[in-house]
Amino acid sequence: MTARYSEDELIARLFAPIAGPAGLGLADDAALLPASAEPTVATVDMLVAGVHFFPDDPPALIAKKALRVNLSDLAAKGAEPIGFLLALALPHDWTNAWLTAFAQGLGEDAKAYAAPLIGGDTTATPGPLTISITALGRAPRFVPRAGARPGDAVFVSGTIGDAALGLVLRRDPALAARLPAEARAHLDDRYRLPRPRLDLVAALRAQATAAMDVSDGLAGDLAKLCRASGVSAVVEAPLVPLSPAAQEAIARAPAHFETALTGGDDYEILFTAGPGRDPPPGAVRIGEIVAGRTAPTFLDATKTQIVFGKMSFSHF
Amino acid sequence: MTARYSEDELIARLFAPIAGPAGLGLADDAALLPASAEPTVATVDMLVAGVHFFPDDPPALIAKKALRVNLSDLAAKGAEPIGFLLALALPHDWTNAWLTAFAQGLGEDAKAYAAPLIGGDTTATPGPLTISITALGRAPRFVPRAGARPGDAVFVSGTIGDAALGLVLRRDPALAARLPAEARAHLDDRYRLPRPRLDLVAALRAQATAAMDVSDGLAGDLAKLCRASGVSAVVEAPLVPLSPAAQEAIARAPAHFETALTGGDDYEILFTAGPGRDPPPGAVRIGEIVAGRTAPTFLDATKTQIVFGKMSFSHF
Repeated sequence: MTARYSEDELIARLFAPIAGPAGLGLADDAALLPASAEPTVATVDMLVAGVHFFPDDPPALIAKKALRVNLSDLAAKGAEPIGFLLALALPHDWTNAWLTAFAQGLGEDAKAYAAPLIGGDTTATPGPLTISITALGRAPRFVPRAGARPGDAVFVSGTIGDAALGLVLRRDPALAARLPAEARAHLDDRYRLPRPRLDLVAALRAQATAAMDVSDGLAGDLAKLCRASGVSAVVEAPLVPLSPAAQEAIARAPAHFETALTGGDDYEILFTAGPGRDPPPGAVRIGEIVAGRTAPTFLDATKTQIVFGKMSFSHF
Repeated sequence: MTARYSEDELIARLFAPIAGPAGLGLADDAALLPASAEPTVATVDMLVAGVHFFPDDPPALIAKKALRVNLSDLAAKGAEPIGFLLALALPHDWTNAWLTAFAQGLGEDAKAYAAPLIGGDTTATPGPLTISITALGRAPRFVPRAGARPGDAVFVSGTIGDAALGLVLRRDPALAARLPAEARAHLDDRYRLPRPRLDLVAALRAQATAAMDVSDGLAGDLAKLCRASGVSAVVEAPLVPLSPAAQEAIARAPAHFETALTGGDDYEILFTAGPGRDPPPGAVRIGEIVAGRTAPTFLDATKTQIVFGKMSFSHF
């Protein structure tokens, strides 16, 4: 085996550059965040090789995904990132090359999203690579899950189902082969690399009565938002925005419309706003909040209720 | 296999009670911490079964250790806990009974240390149980590692080496058999259950020029503190406080004096303060900071330098 970095070398060479001056926590027991007049928002996600990503995915993409799923949670709450802490359990066969690429990907995103590494912990594990990132942000107004009220419109940003369809294509090469290369590439990229919608933070703070990111599937996540708010919803499924690539996949395998509405990893924002509100650019109205405690109703083009085999995706 | 809690049940039954009203993050995408005039301090530690604890340790003790190692980091920085986020990767064979006991232990400590659970993430893993806790605290004055100056006195709280000797006894039943039961029990308990020194927070804020918790061994951790501060130190090893139990173990196996000074898991506070300062109750002066960049010198009773085989313990 080639020589590998010691823990100190690893921090000094790979992680300190991601931290910048904010990275006191890398050389101390803890990170220090200056006092602020705004509340702090904190979220954690743990990703395990073989569960949340393929162990042979490019390390830079794994790093970016691990950070971005957390930034997506911040965005949904109307929070701008302050920084993040990284806990990393490395399997016995890690290499300097792998970890260098991982750190490089992480550094690119830390810079792109103005979210420096502020602290962390590294350990060995006899199991798979495990990454836990805690992201911290600030929000003058925290947008809760529990704020939806009957009469509110339901909005969703971007397009839904691309990531879930990207995963389908990995597992169904026959379907993948029937799609144009461009559509395949789009869906695969959307599966591998979430785009946290931090561009919507200002609009969410201004308009949203409730919000969450769509990580476990639109249908199941809307059910969670409704449950938290003590309401129900009616969604017109034809209004759910689909990318051209998703439309091509669904045209060839119509059963995958359900995959698009119930699969995970969209990392778009599902939110509600009072009636008469125009959605921010890039978001569309898909339905409305109604009184009640039942699960949200999804209607097809003939106004017939769609019954899903499975509401959402779970790694648990 | 008996039926196991779903992720929702697990949160509602086991973790929501630990959260209390602060636990918004359990039912939302993120936790919300009110604005404060004090800086926020954040630290993360990841513990892996078979690496940081024995998989068959009592689950309540595993939970308490995972939380306490983080609270110890906060204490060393002069920070009071606000709360913590828990990321948990559960192996395939987890049971409701195990997780119930884990949550109960965690809840006891959350209450005892006024550190509620404010958010988290749960996932499955094909590997060992992996726990990542991020603790958040507030400190009107952050006590850094990097503040030690020549002439400062070096202090340490409590007693040193108990936990490392407790681990030795687990691995050396012959030595354990030669010790009184009370001494064995003391050392084992100190290995399994750290006591974060939050009682020292006020004194550290008031007096300490630099501080860190002793988690990887006194000698190695003092070297880290000196390196961060750009100084060196001279320690009189006979001044290092040892418990009666540790003294009994070392009397029977004198080579383990080195284990006591270089082993891990003390979770006491190592700190420096300007000359002429009285230490807070429960802390003792063990040496002083000197100018220089070399590793700290440990002197024995004859003022001869002690050369350690290994400066500190690493799980990496």
